[in-house]
Amino acid sequence: MKARVTVMLKDGVLDPQGEAVRLALTGLGFDGVRGVRQGKVIEVDLATEDRAAAEAEISRMCETLLANTVIESWQVELP
Amino acid sequence: MKARVTVMLKDGVLDPQGEAVRLALTGLGFDGVRGVRQGKVIEVDLATEDRAAAEAEISRMCETLLANTVIESWQVELP
Repeated sequence: MKARVTVMLKDGVLDPQGEAVRLALTGLGFDGVRGVRQGKVIEVDLATEDRAAAEAEISRMCETLLANTVIESWQVELP
Repeated sequence: MKARVTVMLKDGVLDPQGEAVRLALTGLGFDGVRGVRQGKVIEVDLATEDRAAAEAEISRMCETLLANTVIESWQVELP
């Protein structure tokens, strides 16, 4: 089962990477950009086909490795 | 209008970042991980509220800046 984890900086946390993208887009002539936030997406291919087990395992992965929960939030999409 | 762009390495392109995450997860005792791919997610806040215009603009952004289309594929989600 393939799970997709999206990790974003929480609102209010400064995002210099997103800000750099915003500046670059504006410099390229894209005038209608009000803001950019950049995050990570991690696709994890799990051996289990049990949805509940996959969700529990992914949650533990996020809390221990994939996200820094002080400044980042995460969400999981399962098929 | 907020658009969400997901940029992933194309299948077959080596993903050392994803491989590092896979090794770290295995090292932490997550045995059921068969593979990991890591990509970027970019949330762009656009001034326009016109869906078609937003889609066209985001496509141009991806082709010119957000993705390296030689090795990366991208997809857009609009609200």
